[in-house]
Amino acid sequence: MMQSSYQTTACVPIELQERSYAIDIGADLLHGMARQAALPTGTAALVVTNDTIQPLYGAALVATLQERYPAVHTVVLPDGEEHKTWQTLNLIFDALLTHGCDRKTVLYALGGGVIGDMTGFAAACYMRGVPFVQVPTTLLAQVDSSVGGKTAINHPLGKNMIGAFYQPRLVVCDLATLDTLPARELAAGLAEVIKYGPIADMELFAWLEQHMDALLARDRAALAHAVKRSCEIKAAVVGADEREAGLRAILNFGHTFGHAIEAGMGYGVWLHGEGVAAGMVMAAELSRRLGLVDAAFVERLTRLIARAGLPTRAPVLDAQDNAGRYLELMRVDKKAEAGEIRFVLIDGPGQAVMRAAPDALVRGVIDQCCAVA
Amino acid sequence: MMQSSYQTTACVPIELQERSYAIDIGADLLHGMARQAALPTGTAALVVTNDTIQPLYGAALVATLQERYPAVHTVVLPDGEEHKTWQTLNLIFDALLTHGCDRKTVLYALGGGVIGDMTGFAAACYMRGVPFVQVPTTLLAQVDSSVGGKTAINHPLGKNMIGAFYQPRLVVCDLATLDTLPARELAAGLAEVIKYGPIADMELFAWLEQHMDALLARDRAALAHAVKRSCEIKAAVVGADEREAGLRAILNFGHTFGHAIEAGMGYGVWLHGEGVAAGMVMAAELSRRLGLVDAAFVERLTRLIARAGLPTRAPVLDAQDNAGRYLELMRVDKKAEAGEIRFVLIDGPGQAVMRAAPDALVRGVIDQCCAVA
Repeated sequence: MMQSSYQTTACVPIELQERSYAIDIGADLLHGMARQAALPTGTAALVVTNDTIQPLYGAALVATLQERYPAVHTVVLPDGEEHKTWQTLNLIFDALLTHGCDRKTVLYALGGGVIGDMTGFAAACYMRGVPFVQVPTTLLAQVDSSVGGKTAINHPLGKNMIGAFYQPRLVVCDLATLDTLPARELAAGLAEVIKYGPIADMELFAWLEQHMDALLARDRAALAHAVKRSCEIKAAVVGADEREAGLRAILNFGHTFGHAIEAGMGYGVWLHGEGVAAGMVMAAELSRRLGLVDAAFVERLTRLIARAGLPTRAPVLDAQDNAGRYLELMRVDKKAEAGEIRFVLIDGPGQAVMRAAPDALVRGVIDQCCAVA
Repeated sequence: MMQSSYQTTACVPIELQERSYAIDIGADLLHGMARQAALPTGTAALVVTNDTIQPLYGAALVATLQERYPAVHTVVLPDGEEHKTWQTLNLIFDALLTHGCDRKTVLYALGGGVIGDMTGFAAACYMRGVPFVQVPTTLLAQVDSSVGGKTAINHPLGKNMIGAFYQPRLVVCDLATLDTLPARELAAGLAEVIKYGPIADMELFAWLEQHMDALLARDRAALAHAVKRSCEIKAAVVGADEREAGLRAILNFGHTFGHAIEAGMGYGVWLHGEGVAAGMVMAAELSRRLGLVDAAFVERLTRLIARAGLPTRAPVLDAQDNAGRYLELMRVDKKAEAGEIRFVLIDGPGQAVMRAAPDALVRGVIDQCCAVA
């Protein structure tokens, strides 16, 4: 038997009026979740997970939830970004309706960002809204999707095009679950941690430069700090702009180029964090060409990204007109307005700014950053 | 050319803090909508309508919206409750993405309740939320779905199981569009108008007894009053309970039995309002058997429903165990909690109450109200 205590290393409060909740961070939290008083009450729980995570942690979560709910059901989805579709989402609705789940049912998202996005969206829509709890098992999900309430599925014509802003009741980041995370996915999560440096906190950035080896070795104290600071920074930004009217968009540093990479390569070929990593280098270089940062800053960011084991060069998406293909993909990004691409740029280290850029300048950046290494 | 003025007969304000909006009521409003300053601004408009309504009013709405938006697109869905599915909803997303519509796109729902429900849900989900305006062309949609922000699609295992609470920016009830409404659908709309009497306002009920002929003759002054009072009553209830925590459920008078009728017959066989009509007789009879109202009240309600041309007797859903089938269907209703059916009953004329009832009593009501006439 695993221990069933519930000792958090840190707790980040997310302040959103009546939608406020806490992010608990610690090791082996999963087994003792029944001891967390903040779990929503309900007539039943449905654990939504995937076929990779279920064999690892499914039974432990179900066991602890059975202490709190009269009935605990599980639905296992296929693993992978390519399954973040309506068809897969519908498996959750099928499970809920087949089990006769009512409005007092609580959904548990056990898995990475895809599971969190789909479970959150299912919770937002099922009977027009039931409570949900996130138990993110990837670093990316712990530092990114645990704050902000963004839920969504993909559409064949665009990523995250269909979704809702919907907040969880609680997020439990069990650092022990990161032990089973593939190295490539750990690195992808670090891309989002690195991101918080240039846009908001160069102190975190310097800390990352000092502790990158500890993070890659999955040192729990280092991971706890990285998760805590990431959630705190994101919470401060989201708290000021829950519905993404303005400020919140700075969290998409690297994402405009990154989404183009993901879409252009076909979802799932590059991991989200990998696209963001190469995309941050491109956005930093664009910032430099606009005179906002110097070359030393671009170099420093590129070096940290490389140390995390992440790509610093973007893929060629079209042999004939690569820059044209990037621009085409970025114009259908959700942040675009009437076809004008809004870039998140760095206006001096630790400070982000949103602005458009001349196509010629963007083409130059793409040509430079996609050149064969 | 039709007139293009915009003269409202009445305007009902819906107070929901930052989600407040107005319901404009009048004749020939459609053609002059560009003159209504409250239309949301945007880079484009998408008119969502069906193949029945599009030939009647599509061109007029597009023409007036072209005065306000750089681009106006239309998507025409197949007409009918059986098309209130994910597959049809996806046609809206396909249109939005094919036209490259961004977050500043405004959706216009031109049609009845199905169009309103699907357009509202699409607006709630597209890029996690874009504005929408309702232009309801059925009496049911004008008096019911124009207030409350309920949007949804059906799932094979249940009606309205997947949806969102999402408010329109404006509702335009053009009474002239009711001229083309089939008599059966006009009657179905009157079922919801009648409903507001027993649960909240017996003055409206008495007015309906006096003006039923004028309403059936589509007298615009009578229609304007019926729409206005219905929206006002619903607004008062919804304003006190936007997310359906308690009070709002009284609006479902007749709906628990009604939904069972719709589901049991197969969606679209009975109109929603027809199910509600027979369902109200059943709920009133259940109220009587619980000692809450007298037989004279049940008789008076039944008579008014009949005068509107609506069914007062429920269909037999199962030749072997009809009451059992009704109970089974009602137990999966969204209002049920842990399998216990919550009925909206009349606790004296003009006053609703939510409560459970013994199965035996409910079976008696079903046996009586479904008996061959």
